[in-house]
Amino acid sequence: MDIEDERPADGDGAWSPKGLLAGTIAGIKPVSTTACSEAEALHARLTTPPGALGRLQDLGTRLAGMYGACPPPLPEPVAVAVFAADHGVHAQGVSPWPQEVTAQMVGNLAAGGAVVCALARQVGASVQVVDVGVAADLPDTPAVWARKVAHGTADMTVGPAMTPAEVTQAVEVGITVAHDLVGAGARLLVTGDMGIANTTASAALVSALTGLDPAVVTGRGAGVDDAGLVHKIDVVRRAIAVNHAGAEEPLRVLAAVGGLEHAALTGFLLAAAERQTPVVLDGVIAVSAALVARAMAPAAVGYWVAGHRSAEPGASAALEQLGLGPLLDLDLRLGEGSGAVLAVPLVQAAARVLRETATFDAAGVTDKS
Amino acid sequence: MDIEDERPADGDGAWSPKGLLAGTIAGIKPVSTTACSEAEALHARLTTPPGALGRLQDLGTRLAGMYGACPPPLPEPVAVAVFAADHGVHAQGVSPWPQEVTAQMVGNLAAGGAVVCALARQVGASVQVVDVGVAADLPDTPAVWARKVAHGTADMTVGPAMTPAEVTQAVEVGITVAHDLVGAGARLLVTGDMGIANTTASAALVSALTGLDPAVVTGRGAGVDDAGLVHKIDVVRRAIAVNHAGAEEPLRVLAAVGGLEHAALTGFLLAAAERQTPVVLDGVIAVSAALVARAMAPAAVGYWVAGHRSAEPGASAALEQLGLGPLLDLDLRLGEGSGAVLAVPLVQAAARVLRETATFDAAGVTDKS
Repeated sequence: MDIEDERPADGDGAWSPKGLLAGTIAGIKPVSTTACSEAEALHARLTTPPGALGRLQDLGTRLAGMYGACPPPLPEPVAVAVFAADHGVHAQGVSPWPQEVTAQMVGNLAAGGAVVCALARQVGASVQVVDVGVAADLPDTPAVWARKVAHGTADMTVGPAMTPAEVTQAVEVGITVAHDLVGAGARLLVTGDMGIANTTASAALVSALTGLDPAVVTGRGAGVDDAGLVHKIDVVRRAIAVNHAGAEEPLRVLAAVGGLEHAALTGFLLAAAERQTPVVLDGVIAVSAALVARAMAPAAVGYWVAGHRSAEPGASAALEQLGLGPLLDLDLRLGEGSGAVLAVPLVQAAARVLRETATFDAAGVTDKS
Repeated sequence: MDIEDERPADGDGAWSPKGLLAGTIAGIKPVSTTACSEAEALHARLTTPPGALGRLQDLGTRLAGMYGACPPPLPEPVAVAVFAADHGVHAQGVSPWPQEVTAQMVGNLAAGGAVVCALARQVGASVQVVDVGVAADLPDTPAVWARKVAHGTADMTVGPAMTPAEVTQAVEVGITVAHDLVGAGARLLVTGDMGIANTTASAALVSALTGLDPAVVTGRGAGVDDAGLVHKIDVVRRAIAVNHAGAEEPLRVLAAVGGLEHAALTGFLLAAAERQTPVVLDGVIAVSAALVARAMAPAAVGYWVAGHRSAEPGASAALEQLGLGPLLDLDLRLGEGSGAVLAVPLVQAAARVLRETATFDAAGVTDKS
């Protein structure tokens, strides 16, 4: 696979969104400011002291804007999409886990044994695993949709991780998965991911798209030690240098240092916004993809909710750039969608408060003097 | 009501726990270190990178210790007890809300229209309102248990808020409510409260029991302005001075500057520990009562989970003293049990992870190299 030969020259428009992606971006409308204003007015009439709901009030107002309705509907059913893929950069020794664990964990996810499966049962969410790039042949099943674009990416330290065709195809996988889940009735989407070495690609994306040094945004992922972290930072630095990855063309950066699941998540996040369906972001994999998506469609950010602050430093850096405050901060660094699923009840609670709390008038409660 | 005449002299043992309270305290066993160790060992075998579950792992381990079982049972059914009472110190102008709002909000709670009711429906919890001291005559109903001890407390700026008999009776209300709820099947309890001016009493309790200045631990409650906050701090300072309230005798401090709901919550928290039933603490009202309870039974803290960090400064001060890290930090200052109810799914998730996540062996996943 000679990736270099397929790479279009920079700046000639070759990396402009086309086809399904371009249509998706064009269909994204800003959240409804009318519904947001109505939600603020409704909050003021609920039997609570002004401001006492803190960030739950902000979230409820945002949900009204996303759904374009006040009160917003209850955000259910909930569908978690776990995009699984492997990474060529694994060959650089950036993870203590063998690459085969990706496929093994896909099996664990399909069997309901992974942490995110337990958490999803807790909140009544469904889990859909999507093989977008696992380096093993996996059958198509109801639990694991076979949408494989490639058997993992290429090693980003020697050239782009993906070809333009692969990026396009993986982004479209994410778009169609969002369409499929929303079409099946989901009113709240949740990002999930599985892929050994995917925090390395995430760190590279965050560094390239924010301009922050790799040392600032690279973390321990699933558990590298001190020496491993130093090495991982160096790998990220080399990948960015080899690919001349900067913030100018988000799809080129994605191809250069991203993963197939990052590409799919980019499409997923954009399609969720286009369908006016809120999506809860998990950790550094999701928020690095969100940086790519936002660069193509800034209005899409209005439909995203930051589930938690991952322990990965790149996640905090990306959230700050996105202007999203995380709902939870539990020092999680598990991935799979785990932190986002844990935040789902908070999202539902914020909508439920607007739907079900009595107003001062209706409850016969005297308002503040 | 001449409270001074009823007040026993300090240091003569008159404030030692007696009767039902003494029996409850005597029945509190430390959490099971065996079950905690088993939970840690089980966590290490689950298909997750070591430490990736962050604070959710700590919580799961603690739950095993509380229930004395690994894995712990699912913490359900969930029962929220909302203790409602009025405060004589309201006469000092510490709240912009009229006192009648307490009784009105009890009606709103009973009708299911309060925020905590909406949140409880979200997490499948029941809400039990307990009138332990509302300054209005309320009928006994299934939704609102009539356990009134007094029509509100006395004004703590002119003497003790409660008589010894009132404190004893209110503490016993809390104990019996915990017994009733656990006896009806609850495996997770949640604290709630309703009482105009109760953040003033809470601040006084926290100040007296921690030694921190009233200016540090007094907050805006349900919404005093800057001048109101200065006045509220002065009221707290006067109440502590008039009553010579220090940390030595927790029941005397409770009587001097607490509320009837604080007394009930103190009993509730102790009885939960005695019944080995975890209890999720809400905001400053609950955590100030927790300081009283801990002073009588330090081992009880092992059964308490801090649901959230309230915006009230006294809550953070008390949590630090208790050594409890809050699960949520959403800038809430609503009370009612709202922040604690929002944390319930996290508590359940922590137990569910231990119960349902596959081990490396069972899932056929290769462990870290």
